[in-house]
Amino acid sequence: METTAVVVGTGNVATHLTRALLNSGVRVLMLYSRTKAHAEEAALSSGVPSTYNWRELPADADFYIYAVSDSALSTVLAQELAPAAIHLHTAGSIGSEFFPQHKPRHGVLYPLQTFSKSKPLDFRSVPLFIEASSADVLAEVNRLALMLADKVYESDSQQRRHLHLAAVFACNFVNHLYAIADELVQSSGLPFEVLRPLIVETASKIEFLSPRDAQTGPAVRRDESVLQKHLELLSDHPAYQKIYELISRSISGF
Amino acid sequence: METTAVVVGTGNVATHLTRALLNSGVRVLMLYSRTKAHAEEAALSSGVPSTYNWRELPADADFYIYAVSDSALSTVLAQELAPAAIHLHTAGSIGSEFFPQHKPRHGVLYPLQTFSKSKPLDFRSVPLFIEASSADVLAEVNRLALMLADKVYESDSQQRRHLHLAAVFACNFVNHLYAIADELVQSSGLPFEVLRPLIVETASKIEFLSPRDAQTGPAVRRDESVLQKHLELLSDHPAYQKIYELISRSISGF
Repeated sequence: METTAVVVGTGNVATHLTRALLNSGVRVLMLYSRTKAHAEEAALSSGVPSTYNWRELPADADFYIYAVSDSALSTVLAQELAPAAIHLHTAGSIGSEFFPQHKPRHGVLYPLQTFSKSKPLDFRSVPLFIEASSADVLAEVNRLALMLADKVYESDSQQRRHLHLAAVFACNFVNHLYAIADELVQSSGLPFEVLRPLIVETASKIEFLSPRDAQTGPAVRRDESVLQKHLELLSDHPAYQKIYELISRSISGF
Repeated sequence: METTAVVVGTGNVATHLTRALLNSGVRVLMLYSRTKAHAEEAALSSGVPSTYNWRELPADADFYIYAVSDSALSTVLAQELAPAAIHLHTAGSIGSEFFPQHKPRHGVLYPLQTFSKSKPLDFRSVPLFIEASSADVLAEVNRLALMLADKVYESDSQQRRHLHLAAVFACNFVNHLYAIADELVQSSGLPFEVLRPLIVETASKIEFLSPRDAQTGPAVRRDESVLQKHLELLSDHPAYQKIYELISRSISGF
């Protein structure tokens, strides 16, 4: 029996999720964005019909997946639609109690990954964390999740919040450190490319070593003379100086 | 004509450098560590004779490479040995003016990479930054560097200092964020493994996008409600709370 879905949202997560649904044989009946231009763009790039008018959404899909920003989530969930279907959100930091009463069969499908529209990735390797309002909904969500990816974990809202927080450190903050490093390297007249082997190796090391064992650099060696020189080099960047001091102190005391 | 070298140091950099020298056909005459146990261990793992007695080092090598901590560097460079040979250090933050007068032919061979003894890596992909006391020494150092790796850049001490600083952000600090994420994930009862696809993808994205364009997460979306929830979740970890606030603020203002 064919599985059908509607995807609400056309951002980074929605785009990758739609692609994964299509790749795994789910029929995506329609995409929704509140912005006309985004809806049109998403239809073009996915080949799935889209709308920016809530009333045009079909009421007969098996799954309604809400992949929108946390702040937009309550608005879209408040819309009454398909009360017998399964409604899922994809947010790391929002509990399953967030669903209104007119969506009794609901759950969460949280992909622990960073998505940018323009960067393709293998969705099958994305760990999915699921939660559901009842055992039978959980079985359905689990079936859908396993169509999309190889690793599916059941986790409650509290665990998912911690995961999301951990992901902010391991991904969003890490990427910002790349951006700072990029700025520093370019200001010395060298291209960012020279840092790529280091960045890849740093990520690859933790397949072999725990992050604690993989730690290198002046802070873990407590090399005060290098730390002082680096703080001086950052004298034009007081915000980076503070980040340098705080993380170095955290490494030394870890 | 065979190239010969002596490696002073048996730490992470020295270990990988020795392996790379051997792999590229350089004859490593001897390794030195001031610690007997380290010298013996290095001899066992590399197959190269080693000593902890400075006077046993051969005086006829082409290159003497000092891969020791910044704080140990002045002590080993102060030793008088092989005044006609080329003496190189591998430190990112130390200028070439650091060499004493009795080592007139000197330079720097700085590998921009993170090395842990137990993690193998392909040294040919490590960017090497070189500097030398004269044009003829530079030619020799360049020849040696190209035996070891594919990308060799000439850079002065000031550029190298900036590179080293950038590497601390892109590698050492990044790894510490992995360690924090590890702790957060494990405290919620999940294994660190669940974060690995995210970590690898975060590093892989910047081959396609600049770090600025690759930025995702609540801080770049200025999602105050998630930021507040995350700070509450970190209430038992005031040091991580500070790191969270500081980096989020830096991302929002970037």
